Amino acid sequence: MSEIDEVKQHESVQESLQQVIALLAKHRVVEHLVHHQAMRRHELVESLVHKQNVTELQRKLEALHPADVAFILEALPLGDRLAVWHLVKADRDGEILLEVSDAVRATLIADMEPEELVAATEQLDTDEIADLAPDLPEEVIEDVFQSLSMEEREQLRAAMSYPEESVGALMDFEMVTIREDVTLEVVLRYLRRLDELPDHTDQLFVVDRGDFLKGVLPVGRVLVNDPDKLVAEVMLPDTVRFRPGQMADEAAQAFERYELVSAPVVDDRGELVGRVTVAAVMDYIREESDSDMLALAGLREGEDIFSSVWISAKNRWTWLAVNLVTAFIASRVIGIFEGSIEKLVALAALMPIVAGIGGNSGNQTITMLVRAMALGQIHSANARKLLAKELAISLLNGVVWGTIFGFFATLLYHSLPLGIVMMAAMTLNLMVAALFGVFIPILLHRMGRDPAVGSSVLITALTDSGGFFIFLGLATLFLI
Amino acid sequence: MSEIDEVKQHESVQESLQQVIALLAKHRVVEHLVHHQAMRRHELVESLVHKQNVTELQRKLEALHPADVAFILEALPLGDRLAVWHLVKADRDGEILLEVSDAVRATLIADMEPEELVAATEQLDTDEIADLAPDLPEEVIEDVFQSLSMEEREQLRAAMSYPEESVGALMDFEMVTIREDVTLEVVLRYLRRLDELPDHTDQLFVVDRGDFLKGVLPVGRVLVNDPDKLVAEVMLPDTVRFRPGQMADEAAQAFERYELVSAPVVDDRGELVGRVTVAAVMDYIREESDSDMLALAGLREGEDIFSSVWISAKNRWTWLAVNLVTAFIASRVIGIFEGSIEKLVALAALMPIVAGIGGNSGNQTITMLVRAMALGQIHSANARKLLAKELAISLLNGVVWGTIFGFFATLLYHSLPLGIVMMAAMTLNLMVAALFGVFIPILLHRMGRDPAVGSSVLITALTDSGGFFIFLGLATLFLI
Repeated sequence: MSEIDEVKQHESVQESLQQVIALLAKHRVVEHLVHHQAMRRHELVESLVHKQNVTELQRKLEALHPADVAFILEALPLGDRLAVWHLVKADRDGEILLEVSDAVRATLIADMEPEELVAATEQLDTDEIADLAPDLPEEVIEDVFQSLSMEEREQLRAAMSYPEESVGALMDFEMVTIREDVTLEVVLRYLRRLDELPDHTDQLFVVDRGDFLKGVLPVGRVLVNDPDKLVAEVMLPDTVRFRPGQMADEAAQAFERYELVSAPVVDDRGELVGRVTVAAVMDYIREESDSDMLALAGLREGEDIFSSVWISAKNRWTWLAVNLVTAFIASRVIGIFEGSIEKLVALAALMPIVAGIGGNSGNQTITMLVRAMALGQIHSANARKLLAKELAISLLNGVVWGTIFGFFATLLYHSLPLGIVMMAAMTLNLMVAALFGVFIPILLHRMGRDPAVGSSVLITALTDSGGFFIFLGLATLFLI
Repeated sequence: MSEIDEVKQHESVQESLQQVIALLAKHRVVEHLVHHQAMRRHELVESLVHKQNVTELQRKLEALHPADVAFILEALPLGDRLAVWHLVKADRDGEILLEVSDAVRATLIADMEPEELVAATEQLDTDEIADLAPDLPEEVIEDVFQSLSMEEREQLRAAMSYPEESVGALMDFEMVTIREDVTLEVVLRYLRRLDELPDHTDQLFVVDRGDFLKGVLPVGRVLVNDPDKLVAEVMLPDTVRFRPGQMADEAAQAFERYELVSAPVVDDRGELVGRVTVAAVMDYIREESDSDMLALAGLREGEDIFSSVWISAKNRWTWLAVNLVTAFIASRVIGIFEGSIEKLVALAALMPIVAGIGGNSGNQTITMLVRAMALGQIHSANARKLLAKELAISLLNGVVWGTIFGFFATLLYHSLPLGIVMMAAMTLNLMVAALFGVFIPILLHRMGRDPAVGSSVLITALTDSGGFFIFLGLATLFLI
C-alpha cells in the first residue's frame, strides 16, 4: 500500500493514443497479409502474432479510464475506431458510449446489435440512459424500459421529458437525503452503512417526509461539527437551488459564479427531484462553447474530424449555400455598375478593400456582442450606449484608415477625387458594419434565436453588398 | 431554522442588476439637481432623498455574493460602475477584484488609492494575491509583500513565478494533509478541531514527514468506513496528480475527463506543493474559450463592452491593419488584370463570388481543426488523412456549386466559356482553401503558437488573393 507510486503525468492519454495507433499498425499488417493470402485466412487469424497483438491491445484498453478510451476512439479514423471498439469489454460499452461525442457515438451505435445496446444500458443510471436515448433505435429503448423497476421508469420518463438545454437534462438522481431532527452522530452511522458516497457528494440534502427540501448539509460540516449537534442546527436552509425546467445556461452561470460542486433541483412545490453536479455542468459548458464556435463558422455538431466526406459536405452546405446566395447578390450589385467600371477600371481593384474592412470590423463587433450576451451583460439600458460607442470607433477607424487608403488610391491612380471617394466609402461602410454588428445579434436574441448562429454570415453579406454599393455608387455620382 | 425558505431562482442576478440600475437612475436625478443648483449642493447631498438612496443601494450590494457584484460592475458603463464601486464595503474589495474581468479590473484599480489596494489584498490568500499582482502598481506589491509572513511570502513568490498557462498559476495552498499511519477516528478528531474545511475539499492529502505525497483519502471514504481502519488501508495511493510547470490545458482536460473536484500538485521529488480545484479549472476554461473566440475575430481580452472608444479602437487595430494589408495585396492582384477587366467587365462582378466561397469554406476547415487540436485529436498519423478528406469535400463542393454558378454566369453573360472558367476557378479556389485550411493551423501549432490566433485572417487573405488570381488568370488565358 505504501510503496512509492510513480508520479502519474497526465500526458499519458496522448501516449496511450500513440501506443494504440502503433498496435493497430501491427494489426493492420497482419490483416493485410490475411487479405492477400485469402486462402489461408483462417490459419492466419489464429496465428500467434495476431493473438498476441489483440491481447496486448485489449490489456491496454482495459487499463484505461472510459473517458480515455472515448478520447482514443474519437481520434481514430472509422476503420480503426471500430476495430478498437470491438476489443472493448462489453461491460464497459455503456460508460464509453456516454463519453464520446455525438458524431462518434452514432458510428459506434450503428455498428452494434440491438442486444448489445440493451446490455450496454444495463450498466447505466437512468439519467445516463436518458442521455443516450435520442441515439438509440426505438426497439432498444422499449426493451430497456421493460427491464427497469417502477421507480427507475419514472425517473427515465422524467429525465427524457426535459429539453436538451434545461436543468432537467443535466440532472441525476444520486442524492443522499437525511432528516433535520437527527444528530450528526446518526448521520455518520447512516453513511457508514453505505458502501460509498455517490461521486460529487459535497453536501447531503435535508428533506421532510414529503421530500420537501429544507436545506443542505455540506459534508465538511458533518466532519468539523460536534456529533451531538442536530442536523437542523448546522444545515444551510437558504441555498442555491434549481428547477428542472430552468435554462441550463442559468445553472451553468450559477455553478461558475458560486463555485458549486453540486446543487439540488426542486419542483414547483419545493420537493427534491434530483441534483446537478459540476461534472454535468462542465460537459455542458464544453459542448456549448464548442457549438458556439462551430456556429460562428456555419458548422453543426454532427461532424467529427473523421466523418465521411458526404456527411461533412452536407454539414457545411447550409451556410455555404447561404454564403453563395449573398455572394451572388453582391455580384449583382456590382453588375449594376458595370458601366462605371468599364469607364474607370480602378474601381474593380479598389472595391474589395472597402467591402473587406467592413466585414472584418463588423465581425469584431459581433464577436464582442455575442460574448457579452452569453454573459448576460446586454440589456435595453446599455444597448444604445453600445451602438454609440461602436459607431464612434467606426468613425475613428474610417477617418484614419480611409485617409491612408485614400492617399494610396490617389498615388496609384493619380486622381484625388478617387482618393476622396475611397475614404468616404470606407468610413460609410464601417458605419454600416457597426450599426448591423450591434443590431443583428440583438435582433436574433429578441427573436429567441441563438445570436451566434449565422450572425457572421449576415454581417459579411451586408458589408459586402453594402460596400460595393456605397463605393461604386459614390464613384458613379462623383467620378463618372 | 426550519421555516419554509423561499425557493431561490437563479434569475436573481439579472433582477439585482435591474434594481441597481433603477437605484442609480434615481441617484442620477439627485446628482442632476445638485449640478444645476450648485449653490445648495451641500444641503442637497445631505438631503434625506439622497441618503435613503445610497443606503438602499448599499444594502442591496451587501446582500449580494461577490461574484454577483462583479457581474453588475461589468454590466455598467464606467461612470455608474465607479459610483457603485465606491459604495461597496472596503472589506469586500479584494474578493470582488478577483471576480471581475481583466478589462474591468483595470478600471477599478485605476480609481483606487495605494492604501486601499493594500487593504484589499489583506483579505486574500496568497494564490489570490498572485492572480491580482500583474494589475497592481509596483509600490502596492512591495507593501503587500512586507505585510506577509515568511511562509506566505514563499507561497506568493512561488505562485507568481509560474506562467499564466501553467498548473502553478491555477494552484492554491488550502490543502488538508494527514499521515497514513493513523486511524480514521484520529482523522475525524483532527478535522473536528478545524472551524471548517476549505472549499472544494473532496479529498485529504496523505503525506509523510517530508511532505512526500503518499496518496489521497476521499472525504466520502472517511465517512463510510469503520473509524478503526487505518488511513493507509482506505486511501488511494495511485491518483491523478499534476506538476506546477505542466500546461494548464492538460489539467483542465484531466478535470473534465475524470470529473475531478480537486487534485494534488507535486514537485519533481514528489512533494506536495499545492492543489488545483474544479473552480479554478472552470474559470480557466471559460477564459480560454473566450479568448479563442475573440482571437478568431482578431480581438484581445483587454476590452470590455464599455471600454473607451480609444482603448477599443487600439484593441482592434492590429488585425484590422493586417486585414487591410491583405486587402491591399488582393487589390494589387486585381490591378494586374485591369486590362482583362476592361475588355470583359463581367469578370469584376463575378470575381467576389470565387473569393467568397473560398474564404467561407477555408474558415469552416480551420474551425474544425482548431477545435480538434484543442481536444488533442490531431497527430501526424491522421493529418494526411484529414487533408485528403478536406480536399475531397472541396472537390465535391467545387463540382456542385461550380456547376450551378457556371450555369448562372453562362445565362447572365451569354457565354459558355465564361461559365466554364467560373466553375474551374471556384473548384480550384476551394482546393486552395482546403489545403491551407489544414496547413495553417498545423503549422502555427508546430511553431508553438496558438492556432486560433490569426488563422482566420490568414486563410481569408489567401483565398481572396488566390481566388482573384485564379479566376482572372484563367479568364485572361482562355477568354481574352
